[in-house]
Amino acid sequence: MTQLYAVRMDVALPPDMDPAARGDLLAREKAYSQEWQRSGHWRHIWRCVGEYANLSVFAVESNEELHSILWGLPLFPHMTMTITPLAGHPSDIALAGPGA
Amino acid sequence: MTQLYAVRMDVALPPDMDPAARGDLLAREKAYSQEWQRSGHWRHIWRCVGEYANLSVFAVESNEELHSILWGLPLFPHMTMTITPLAGHPSDIALAGPGA
Amino acid sequence: MTQLYAVRMDVALPPDMDPAARGDLLAREKAYSQEWQRSGHWRHIWRCVGEYANLSVFAVESNEELHSILWGLPLFPHMTMTITPLAGHPSDIALAGPGA
Amino acid sequence: MTQLYAVRMDVALPPDMDPAARGDLLAREKAYSQEWQRSGHWRHIWRCVGEYANLSVFAVESNEELHSILWGLPLFPHMTMTITPLAGHPSDIALAGPGA
Amino acid sequence: MTQLYAVRMDVALPPDMDPAARGDLLAREKAYSQEWQRSGHWRHIWRCVGEYANLSVFAVESNEELHSILWGLPLFPHMTMTITPLAGHPSDIALAGPGA
Amino acid sequence: MTQLYAVRMDVALPPDMDPAARGDLLAREKAYSQEWQRSGHWRHIWRCVGEYANLSVFAVESNEELHSILWGLPLFPHMTMTITPLAGHPSDIALAGPGA
Amino acid sequence: MTQLYAVRMDVALPPDMDPAARGDLLAREKAYSQEWQRSGHWRHIWRCVGEYANLSVFAVESNEELHSILWGLPLFPHMTMTITPLAGHPSDIALAGPGA
Amino acid sequence: MTQLYAVRMDVALPPDMDPAARGDLLAREKAYSQEWQRSGHWRHIWRCVGEYANLSVFAVESNEELHSILWGLPLFPHMTMTITPLAGHPSDIALAGPGA
Amino acid sequence: MTQLYAVRMDVALPPDMDPAARGDLLAREKAYSQEWQRSGHWRHIWRCVGEYANLSVFAVESNEELHSILWGLPLFPHMTMTITPLAGHPSDIALAGPGA
Amino acid sequence: MTQLYAVRMDVALPPDMDPAARGDLLAREKAYSQEWQRSGHWRHIWRCVGEYANLSVFAVESNEELHSILWGLPLFPHMTMTITPLAGHPSDIALAGPGA
Repeated sequence: MTQLYAVRMDVALPPDMDPAARGDLLAREKAYSQEWQRSGHWRHIWRCVGEYANLSVFAVESNEELHSILWGLPLFPHMTMTITPLAGHPSDIALAGPGA
Repeated sequence: MTQLYAVRMDVALPPDMDPAARGDLLAREKAYSQEWQRSGHWRHIWRCVGEYANLSVFAVESNEELHSILWGLPLFPHMTMTITPLAGHPSDIALAGPGA
Repeated sequence: MTQLYAVRMDVALPPDMDPAARGDLLAREKAYSQEWQRSGHWRHIWRCVGEYANLSVFAVESNEELHSILWGLPLFPHMTMTITPLAGHPSDIALAGPGA
Repeated sequence: MTQLYAVRMDVALPPDMDPAARGDLLAREKAYSQEWQRSGHWRHIWRCVGEYANLSVFAVESNEELHSILWGLPLFPHMTMTITPLAGHPSDIALAGPGA
Repeated sequence: MTQLYAVRMDVALPPDMDPAARGDLLAREKAYSQEWQRSGHWRHIWRCVGEYANLSVFAVESNEELHSILWGLPLFPHMTMTITPLAGHPSDIALAGPGA
Repeated sequence: MTQLYAVRMDVALPPDMDPAARGDLLAREKAYSQEWQRSGHWRHIWRCVGEYANLSVFAVESNEELHSILWGLPLFPHMTMTITPLAGHPSDIALAGPGA
Repeated sequence: MTQLYAVRMDVALPPDMDPAARGDLLAREKAYSQEWQRSGHWRHIWRCVGEYANLSVFAVESNEELHSILWGLPLFPHMTMTITPLAGHPSDIALAGPGA
Repeated sequence: MTQLYAVRMDVALPPDMDPAARGDLLAREKAYSQEWQRSGHWRHIWRCVGEYANLSVFAVESNEELHSILWGLPLFPHMTMTITPLAGHPSDIALAGPGA
Repeated sequence: MTQLYAVRMDVALPPDMDPAARGDLLAREKAYSQEWQRSGHWRHIWRCVGEYANLSVFAVESNEELHSILWGLPLFPHMTMTITPLAGHPSDIALAGPGA
Repeated sequence: MTQLYAVRMDVALPPDMDPAARGDLLAREKAYSQEWQRSGHWRHIWRCVGEYANLSVFAVESNEELHSILWGLPLFPHMTMTITPLAGHPSDIALAGPGA
């Protein structure tokens, strides 16, 4: 059964990081993210305005699968994560029958 | 131009509220929310698991329009809001060209 | 697939609550909790020493199921919840093969 | 449509930064800031008394434009941002008609 | 000498306030605010989007004068204030000479 | 007398740690943890999803014994600990007699 | 085995409490506290200067016993507790041998 | 020996307090404060601008004396206190000899 | 017009700072502080007991002057500042007429 | 007059500190602590379970004396201090007369 989680990722890279190492790291992060977007597991990714942070929504089979995806992020050692498990909301029109 | 905002709404109703008044209030809240969902402005609404709270995403024309919608919520006097303006993320495959 | 979540529940009852109403509420809470313990969904419940709070571990099918159980708690309107989704830990001997 | 945002920027430069690199960084920051002030997007910039921080007000077309300006700040990797989207206030005399 | 202060005002009115008393209170608040805006002391007032709060900028002679204005607000007993004294910023083009 | 404690351990390793030293450190941590799990003192260890953190439950004779085990963790200098002493909960079916 | 715990208790009584009920409550609290002091379980109780709070040290057999004592406090429903389990400190001269 | 303490007092009176009771309470508070000012124990009292709060400096014989004065404040049940014990500063010119 | 501000300064020097550089820095800080004390602008400076911090009171002409003094502190890059603008308190006997 | 203070000391040593320098530092800390314990000024020192922290109680003549002792700690530059001045508690049986 597919489940949703909101994940906010705050990134803190050392300001004096080697530019080539940084470039390589960010390229791997982007490729990794897009792979999971294409597979349908990483449903949304938005930039938080003015911050080195994103808000994402994941659709996965389980807590285990979510952890596995996040743990594998190339930027994971530089990130602070805030995880919010989500459920359907009773006011969501997508969950209501035709007469709702 | 359409813009996105994440809004987390935490609800705190007085435990001793009159049940009829409470029922009426929640019915009006649901109707109000669904009206804005149908118009396309309230794109997502998820329940935060185990909490009287939701995480929502709004697509509006402006800060003004977002404020107007939130201010009009029947539950607004009982809510604490956390607003995060969103922008496109450079890793989002929906924003990439075909060769990305 | 069964998943685990740690849930800390902090209770704040109004000090001037009617004793009979309070007694009835707590009796219903206890019965509800024990029903879910007997079904195997509420795996652990511990009192946090010196606080009107508990730390619990739930084993459920999904975020939805966890929310449904918590939302139905008779004490829910008086509780503040802290939810932590759990996954297997690579050092857990219960997850290791015989040679680990 | 022009929108307003309050942005507080807290700066934390490493105390042992090379003075020439620091001077160059601050000169580029100043030039960048003044360019956006002259274009009308960076409406106000005030120093928070006694702190290495400023409070600014931006007038931009969209969340996207605000993010793009902030992300480009030479000091961005050393800043912590607090973003507050703003709307017109019903008591603002500038928004009131002549008889208000 | 005129000085600037940023003031954020968060309002918390009791949800069960008498509607007439509330209406009267808000009308007096608005009149009071507009009087100080017209005198030039209350330079800016913006609504914080989605919150019962405003961000304002005051231009006054002294700490004393600012306190006197804020203390007199009809809504003062229902407000939480955050005060930030402001100074000119060295990057502000309004403070630079013509060749800057 | 055996007592229970919940312990949350948040790990912060320097991102630039030498990989071999890091590998050795983590191997020693795992062996140390499993030794105490096998002895029955470290009853549960779960990964907090998406975080470099675990939630554990210890069953020890005393505060002294718990401190001694935690202080000896190879990762201890890199950990932030949150300790919650636990007691039996009156709703726990494992503590109730047969007729409860 | 005797164990020590530091407990800070912050008291918040409703300002409009009936004086007689309040007096009775405080008298029962004092008697209860002194009973546990005389038995040797409540080793220290100090007033935190300028606050309606105390810092206490308990010497008990177990987490269970500590919880039982605290839960029984007449003021418990009006208190916020902060619990710190204590252990011997290697610099404590009371724990050192004669040559230390 | 005289000792100094900084004390910040934040006041929260119920907005619906009876005006006469409130007036009486504030008159007693003022008289009490001025009595301790005249005796030399309450050395400074300043209003925190825009807040129902003051910052005070006390010169007393002991922790006991400070607690006794603060506990006796008519507004004490409505106040949140922040206490900072003070000592002489090595840069203070009042503590330096004539050649410093 | 003279105005008062309370300023708390928390100092965080790197533990491995070169002793000579540190000594020179602290000597310059002391001289700078005493210069402003002698001019009457830095009215009070107290050590916060047990902390590398001070609580000071400044009497200056304006926000601008306060910022200029604080910004010039040799220790400024190592300090975290908390600024509280002050005003006269209605209970202050120094502000009352002879009959008060 | 002797006064009491609770002091919590949280220690943060750099993980990569030279072992010999660290050993020397900790030996000096222990000797310093025991000297003040033997003189009767440092009445209690307890380890906070699972944390590199202690909770101590000091009995000193004044704020000045407490600051002097703490400032002299070899570990002081690596410590975060929380200071709570203490007074006698009206429920303390040690303060009550024989008939209490």
